[in-house]
Amino acid sequence: MTFACPISLQQYPTILMAHGGGGRLMHQLIETMFLSVFGSPDREIHDAAVLAIAGDRIAFTTDSYVVNPLFFPGGDIGSLAVNGTVNDLTMAGARPLYLSLGLILEEGLPMETLWRLVRSIKAAADHAQVQIVTGDTKVVDRGKGDGIFINTSGVGILEHSLKIAPSSIQPGDLILLNGDLGRHGIAVMAAREGLDFQTTIISDSAPLTHLVGALLQAGVKLHCLRDLTRGGLASTLNEIMAATRLTLAIEEAAIPVLEEVQGACELLGLDPLYIANEGRFVAFVAPQDADRALDILRSTQEAEGEAAIASVIGEVVLSSPPAVILNSKLGAARFLDLLSGEQLPRIC
Amino acid sequence: MTFACPISLQQYPTILMAHGGGGRLMHQLIETMFLSVFGSPDREIHDAAVLAIAGDRIAFTTDSYVVNPLFFPGGDIGSLAVNGTVNDLTMAGARPLYLSLGLILEEGLPMETLWRLVRSIKAAADHAQVQIVTGDTKVVDRGKGDGIFINTSGVGILEHSLKIAPSSIQPGDLILLNGDLGRHGIAVMAAREGLDFQTTIISDSAPLTHLVGALLQAGVKLHCLRDLTRGGLASTLNEIMAATRLTLAIEEAAIPVLEEVQGACELLGLDPLYIANEGRFVAFVAPQDADRALDILRSTQEAEGEAAIASVIGEVVLSSPPAVILNSKLGAARFLDLLSGEQLPRIC
Repeated sequence: MTFACPISLQQYPTILMAHGGGGRLMHQLIETMFLSVFGSPDREIHDAAVLAIAGDRIAFTTDSYVVNPLFFPGGDIGSLAVNGTVNDLTMAGARPLYLSLGLILEEGLPMETLWRLVRSIKAAADHAQVQIVTGDTKVVDRGKGDGIFINTSGVGILEHSLKIAPSSIQPGDLILLNGDLGRHGIAVMAAREGLDFQTTIISDSAPLTHLVGALLQAGVKLHCLRDLTRGGLASTLNEIMAATRLTLAIEEAAIPVLEEVQGACELLGLDPLYIANEGRFVAFVAPQDADRALDILRSTQEAEGEAAIASVIGEVVLSSPPAVILNSKLGAARFLDLLSGEQLPRIC
Repeated sequence: MTFACPISLQQYPTILMAHGGGGRLMHQLIETMFLSVFGSPDREIHDAAVLAIAGDRIAFTTDSYVVNPLFFPGGDIGSLAVNGTVNDLTMAGARPLYLSLGLILEEGLPMETLWRLVRSIKAAADHAQVQIVTGDTKVVDRGKGDGIFINTSGVGILEHSLKIAPSSIQPGDLILLNGDLGRHGIAVMAAREGLDFQTTIISDSAPLTHLVGALLQAGVKLHCLRDLTRGGLASTLNEIMAATRLTLAIEEAAIPVLEEVQGACELLGLDPLYIANEGRFVAFVAPQDADRALDILRSTQEAEGEAAIASVIGEVVLSSPPAVILNSKLGAARFLDLLSGEQLPRIC
């Protein structure tokens, strides 16, 4: 650890909104400041750490939630705080077991709002089959918070011997996606700005435990899993590309986006591929496993009454230099790059 | 879970600062709202949950830190966030292994402040022998936070077969305290209010792992451990009294309080027994183990160059109704009750 700040204080004298946005500035902060200090060469760092404790593989993760507004179509900060952390554990290949709940309340928060959120947290935890086992409450003065911020941390257990991580991805792997993109970010944005679309857009916030659990239980050899939160599909694929130095080629036509989400994006000048989802993930599997994985995902979705439909959206190819390439519906190819910040702040 | 809010909305329509203060209102919020929804009859709920994962006993805890100001004599929000969570694991009888780090940054936070805190977190983690293995960064708009809030959650392992919990406390047990009281709260208060005492009062913030580790390694049969944070010694003893229905009798003359802390308390109208500490704990042990435990604590303190000196401050007695009784230096006895809030807000 050097004594000098690894981020240029001339260029970035203060924290900007973009430092929390899932794009280039957030990656720079994490890599040059946090990982240079806390990182370890033995761990592939992602949203959850996989730890060996007394011979078992345990996953451990944390997320703070600062979504604004607190309630939006399809969810609220409470259910989001459960689903998001459950999904980080799930993406590490773990079965989520236990969550902690840390509340930072602003003086003056209506007690009824807190109670509504507590019930929502309980319902989401029951749905995802995790238990809230420990917690903490802090109160800050009026004007020093924003109603409520929630931190959930989670512990889960890995009950298989796979290494689910970017380093397991191979050229030729297919990329599966479990449903349509862009709903969470647009739903929160619309609620915040009071935008009225013809159809109310509902967040996709949901736990991914059932889908991934079904894949693991069937013995599908998952190479890597990633949920598509801050920065959306495009940012996630860029992270994977950077970690693997492999090219990811995606077919635009294979990526479902609801018509009303597409319309809202056009109106707002946003790209659905960069918008945060809270119930969407990509799975990397060998080509010979892809059909079976897809069948399992789809039948699980059907059994749970989900409207979302899993599909293959692209593949991993060996080409240099590595890139994330989108083959458009019109046949043209373009690079998907990392944005410098998030298009939509405070969506999780 | 009932649908109606278990806290009277007439009486408490909104969250007050006292709901985070470690006193009666915070206990009411935790017990009537959080534990009624999330509690489980199989778990004694305290700051850390002890969980059985694949045959091992794992401790899991969380704390958010909102201390104001961010830097104070003897520490800062970063080292505090490490020591506090390490101590919650330690009090559960666990050896702390891993921490998560969740940052909520306010837009405009000086980058140099963040870097200074990151280095402080690293130094505190190294000192306490824990690793930061996962993290998360969120940014909120200017005026919606207060510089930086930090959540740390922690995982540790229990490497003994003791049950360290209020239910193990027996009448006759002696109560050990590891040092003087009141420094952390007064140090933060003085820094916040710009109070100038003759001597600068230094926070006692420190990890308790070495002291408790030495006791466990020597095979001392610890009945219960509690750190004396929000609400101080008096509130902690009240919690123990409520959980055990046993009376705790404390000798005021045995409780060390530095002269300058006593002076500051008199000036400010505060009682050092209710002030938060961040490096102080009580241990309940059987009388036949007390001398040995005290020797181990003192020799560990000496080896580490600590000025603090452990002592026996009281005992557990069977009397009805149960109470926390302070025998004053002048020979009078008074009840120590739970305050409704914290004397000092935002000290951790």
